[in-house]
Amino acid sequence: MDKLHVVKIGGKVIENKDSLISFLEDFASLEESKILVHGGGNEANNISKKIGLEIKIEGGRRITDSDSLDLITMVYAGKINKKIVSLLQSISCNALGISGADGNAYSAIKRPIKDIDFGFVGDLTEINIPFFTGLIKQNIVPICCSVTHDRKGQLLNTNADTIAASIASALSKNFKVILTYCFEKMGVLENINDENSVIPFIDTKKYHELKNRGTISQGMMPKLHNCFESLEKGVQEIRIGNSSIFSQKNQFTKIKK
Amino acid sequence: MDKLHVVKIGGKVIENKDSLISFLEDFASLEESKILVHGGGNEANNISKKIGLEIKIEGGRRITDSDSLDLITMVYAGKINKKIVSLLQSISCNALGISGADGNAYSAIKRPIKDIDFGFVGDLTEINIPFFTGLIKQNIVPICCSVTHDRKGQLLNTNADTIAASIASALSKNFKVILTYCFEKMGVLENINDENSVIPFIDTKKYHELKNRGTISQGMMPKLHNCFESLEKGVQEIRIGNSSIFSQKNQFTKIKK
Repeated sequence: MDKLHVVKIGGKVIENKDSLISFLEDFASLEESKILVHGGGNEANNISKKIGLEIKIEGGRRITDSDSLDLITMVYAGKINKKIVSLLQSISCNALGISGADGNAYSAIKRPIKDIDFGFVGDLTEINIPFFTGLIKQNIVPICCSVTHDRKGQLLNTNADTIAASIASALSKNFKVILTYCFEKMGVLENINDENSVIPFIDTKKYHELKNRGTISQGMMPKLHNCFESLEKGVQEIRIGNSSIFSQKNQFTKIKK
Repeated sequence: MDKLHVVKIGGKVIENKDSLISFLEDFASLEESKILVHGGGNEANNISKKIGLEIKIEGGRRITDSDSLDLITMVYAGKINKKIVSLLQSISCNALGISGADGNAYSAIKRPIKDIDFGFVGDLTEINIPFFTGLIKQNIVPICCSVTHDRKGQLLNTNADTIAASIASALSKNFKVILTYCFEKMGVLENINDENSVIPFIDTKKYHELKNRGTISQGMMPKLHNCFESLEKGVQEIRIGNSSIFSQKNQFTKIKK
């Protein structure tokens, strides 16, 4: 089976133009097939402030009403996606920007209302494997934004980490998938206050050790849990690091069963 | 050669949700291969008012500065493009939304500065024929917005009519292309003040007659000129009508050499 990189970049990488360009140069130079997944970070917040759109938070979680969904679609599928695609095209990487609606690439179901109505938020239901393999065979690099659809004409806002994990798992049937998360830290830190405490390798045994020791940041534990779930679903290897992860100068965390 | 419809819809069709849905149903039911091209109309103006972005006009023509380009990219490539794609997917039409940057589908050059600096406005230079034919062979329907790129990482704003005409001409090498323009009128009117004066058929002879008679609206003459240019470049037939043009109940204007 051929190797495939599924890479997710966070808002911090996107917001800084220099770090974005340098990341995209590294990404474009990966010799294997690749897919990029991105959200939007603070860009949507900045614009919603400009147009006086109130960001609704309930129980600590953002509510996506109709206006917020329009904004997210404009910023994620429009501004950010097309910026990434045009930059990649300028360095000979044949990128194609998509939302989940395009080619029915990934679809979702509106999150059912229980205690909270999250609004137009979607939980992923299906990845269109033939669509992705078709693009990859043509040497086209899909650039996926975190806007999905319900196949009934409704766009939905979906977590970019989950989209990356689901695409990686689904394509593990046809490829040896390496899933990479780029965020602001250099990797999983042994000590959240020490940037130099990157854990180079985590396997199942080490994961349980870390869980028991309880020194890892609260935010990272559910991420690690999701990583081991993806490994169970067939993903070969997961990497967590910052935007220089592909430059080979940097440390990062490698996670394998 | 197989038939291919290249269809351009104007802002007025997009702005009204009912007319858009009814148009998309007709479009989806076309049995032949198809490509849709759209601009954005007043939606961009409405949002630019909201965010207090000044629309710059010079010599009667709109100037696309960096902020305007961002807005156009958000509205055309984001909001409108994804709305159309998700609506088409809901009626089993496998739509894929693109800008010119995606798959390097259509590229442009920034308009050189002469008397006026139009800003980030692009004049088309190339249509990626293999990219379009590849999608069509997979029964994917490209939905093209009027944002292009210069292959050097810069997005550009380009006239949607010109994109439709250029795609139609370029693909005439591989397909029998019918190019359709949907706008607010039922067709080319013999008398601009009489909605019932649709001219059903215009050939070269009739075109010269109309030119000499001078009764056709000033805005329509350059459009007709461009139509005959497209016919010269291999397009088989051009149709001009309103958003009900494919419903087969309506009149429209057919243009052939």
